Amino acid sequence: MDRFNFSKVMSILFVAALLLAGVEVRAQSAERVDLMILGGTVVTMDGRRRVIENGAVAVRGSTIVAVGTRAEVAGRYRARQTVNATGRAVIPGLINTHTHIPMVLFRGIADDMDLNEWLTKFIFPAEAKNVTEEFVRAGTRLGVAEMIRGGTTTYADMYYFEDAIAEETYKAGMRGVLGETIIDFPVPDNKTPKDALAYSERYIKKWKGNELITPALAPHAPYTVATEILQEARKLSDQLGAPLLIHVAETQKEVNDLKASKGDSPMMYLDKIGFLNDRVLAAHTVVLTDAEIDLMKAKNVGAAHCPQSNMKLASGVAPLPKMLAKDIAVGLGTDGAASNNDLNMWEEMDTAAKLHKVFTGDPTVVTALQVFEMATIRGARALKMETTIGSLEVGKLADIAIVDMDGLHQTPMYNIYSHLVYATKASDVRAVIINGKPVMIERKLLTLNEGDIKRDANAFRVRIIESLKN
Amino acid sequence: MDRFNFSKVMSILFVAALLLAGVEVRAQSAERVDLMILGGTVVTMDGRRRVIENGAVAVRGSTIVAVGTRAEVAGRYRARQTVNATGRAVIPGLINTHTHIPMVLFRGIADDMDLNEWLTKFIFPAEAKNVTEEFVRAGTRLGVAEMIRGGTTTYADMYYFEDAIAEETYKAGMRGVLGETIIDFPVPDNKTPKDALAYSERYIKKWKGNELITPALAPHAPYTVATEILQEARKLSDQLGAPLLIHVAETQKEVNDLKASKGDSPMMYLDKIGFLNDRVLAAHTVVLTDAEIDLMKAKNVGAAHCPQSNMKLASGVAPLPKMLAKDIAVGLGTDGAASNNDLNMWEEMDTAAKLHKVFTGDPTVVTALQVFEMATIRGARALKMETTIGSLEVGKLADIAIVDMDGLHQTPMYNIYSHLVYATKASDVRAVIINGKPVMIERKLLTLNEGDIKRDANAFRVRIIESLKN
Repeated sequence: MDRFNFSKVMSILFVAALLLAGVEVRAQSAERVDLMILGGTVVTMDGRRRVIENGAVAVRGSTIVAVGTRAEVAGRYRARQTVNATGRAVIPGLINTHTHIPMVLFRGIADDMDLNEWLTKFIFPAEAKNVTEEFVRAGTRLGVAEMIRGGTTTYADMYYFEDAIAEETYKAGMRGVLGETIIDFPVPDNKTPKDALAYSERYIKKWKGNELITPALAPHAPYTVATEILQEARKLSDQLGAPLLIHVAETQKEVNDLKASKGDSPMMYLDKIGFLNDRVLAAHTVVLTDAEIDLMKAKNVGAAHCPQSNMKLASGVAPLPKMLAKDIAVGLGTDGAASNNDLNMWEEMDTAAKLHKVFTGDPTVVTALQVFEMATIRGARALKMETTIGSLEVGKLADIAIVDMDGLHQTPMYNIYSHLVYATKASDVRAVIINGKPVMIERKLLTLNEGDIKRDANAFRVRIIESLKN
Repeated sequence: MDRFNFSKVMSILFVAALLLAGVEVRAQSAERVDLMILGGTVVTMDGRRRVIENGAVAVRGSTIVAVGTRAEVAGRYRARQTVNATGRAVIPGLINTHTHIPMVLFRGIADDMDLNEWLTKFIFPAEAKNVTEEFVRAGTRLGVAEMIRGGTTTYADMYYFEDAIAEETYKAGMRGVLGETIIDFPVPDNKTPKDALAYSERYIKKWKGNELITPALAPHAPYTVATEILQEARKLSDQLGAPLLIHVAETQKEVNDLKASKGDSPMMYLDKIGFLNDRVLAAHTVVLTDAEIDLMKAKNVGAAHCPQSNMKLASGVAPLPKMLAKDIAVGLGTDGAASNNDLNMWEEMDTAAKLHKVFTGDPTVVTALQVFEMATIRGARALKMETTIGSLEVGKLADIAIVDMDGLHQTPMYNIYSHLVYATKASDVRAVIINGKPVMIERKLLTLNEGDIKRDANAFRVRIIESLKN
């Protein structure tokens, strides 16, 4: 081997060594993650409301470890599983802040009637005759399946047999703030409110600390729960650190009745009896004075705005623009499917934005962005979970929906928030990830069996129709 | 051959002859039709509002020749093509009574702003700089495709280059009542209202008698068209038997302005100048007195109620319960997609039913059935086409939508009208037949190319964004 050849060989070896070293350096620097979403428009809902075109999200375990451009993220991580989101929007999973999930089995059982007739002739008898633990489980599976297919990843619930609702929700891989109902009259799972408090304590202790389920207390409303029971519920909430879900000021009649019986409107009354704090989530809040909105702000009380239910039951229009002006932690809720008649957060967003425009006569109130905030980060605030969910940020839990943005009904697109609120439908949601785990991919549910769910629901339908004949 | 064998052979021949004769008799009695829809729940919207379980519809050419149970219809007809509707609803194609179809290319271009700002900073400049015949054609294809995918089979339109809209609509196999806009200022296709009247005359004569297209005149509104032009439009309508589409009383400001300039509110003014008759379709009619509703009834003026557009632009809430109480021929309209932001009749139905409940405080006003009537047979009445479309009846044109009823969001079902209005989505529409011809089967468009439509729309999107930068 002559000098020329030797130096040539050494050069080649040197370059080869460099290349190998380079490969090794890259392999070491590409951190392993469990899941990467690549491409698409990442709508972060972070503090700066960043929208990242051709973005990416990396997830390790239950947690988001990177959010950025595809180039930034894909270079730094190697994933066990990747989801292609090209041409789609990657958004925080939607948060439904008020439901009675098993009532989905009563979807459309009675409509277009007086509230009293609706409740006393249909809903109450149907519940009294049908609500069992088995009913609640079937209804929860159906409701959770519908919500996941619409991109909802967290829901707040108030119903009976809430422990069974928690079990079904956990099995489906869904996140929930699930409150056991406490009410003064006998209900399917508890004969007295004291029984319901005891049930709640056992239930909360069982689930406390669960990664998906936040067990909660759900005293029904100021007009259906005695003062001392409300106070005991608050005490239990303090002891166990559990949220308090409650209906407040849904109708003018409720306000009038409470003023007559307690001398105060509902929110004021709840404050006077020492009920309000930042663990309270008040559903509906249709009839509120400015002073009550200030009170909610001072006590950091969350609210669940349910425009479609309030419209369908003719309850009234909540003062949402005022609540937003005061920066109240107000989320959106579908309410139970018996008064909506679906669990569709997209229609709830669309309706919320439009309703307040016509009701105030001002097309600039309640913008698409504000409504999308209510369905995500502000909804998380309503649940006091804004440090863990509601936006796509490093360190937050990976609750994510991937949404088609190129349907004919979405073409062309000028503004992402406008399109999410006014043009996108639940059926455009393609994939859903909750707590880092895919629960729907390409519209196929991974944790629930649609056929079984429908079969069970239809079996209950037959029983329910039969039960109302008597 | 012995006697025994002979009689045996004769018997066999006799039976064979009988069988052959029988077959022939059956073949003669089984009338040939072009299309049969078999199975499913047929929601006829006929005079008796019959709902036929396990029903069938037979179509010959463009016309419905039988509606009944599957057993009745399938035995009597033999079809060239059958569509299986088992487990689905078979409904009259929906009728969208107010659109500006090519504005779908401005979908979401500007939202949540003052009406004047929206019009003068976005819509008018965008139209002035972009609306060409080519634009109108691309927008029509996009809008018609979106509507067909949502089960709409007839639409009423007011825009420019309406002859091109008619051509694209006809090519797509869609039914339309298509009005050329007449307005006092220069617009993309006509410099003066006289030019527009001349255009209209040529256009109407060209299309008059077409099986799908009803050419119409569309004087924009009482406040944008001079009295004598309105009167000339009415005269031309009389001569040619063409519908008159017009915006009336969309906002309180319009009413105030017209009272100041003409001394009358819009509907009263239109009557005084001799404009109103049964060929008039008045869109919006948000601000109406009781006397004006009576006037509409007396003159058989149709109305197009557009709740979502009226909400989004904060125009107000039309007195729909009063209009229905007087049996006004009022249909539903989406308005243009720039103010909605879609052409979705299902959300329009859902919103119409809910809005009037909360606005009147009465959950019994505007029922699901009434809203579904508005989207079908009452919408047909608004267009004065109730003898040919709007219900599934023998002798009517075969405009039919076949809709899934077993989605998770539709489970369980108690009442078909409730489910159609409150639970069913545009994405549940599986097949659409217009004038006897399938235009969508299993969500695949047969007369339009989705890829081409999106490509063309997105090309216009780039141009539109560029045009608004100056």
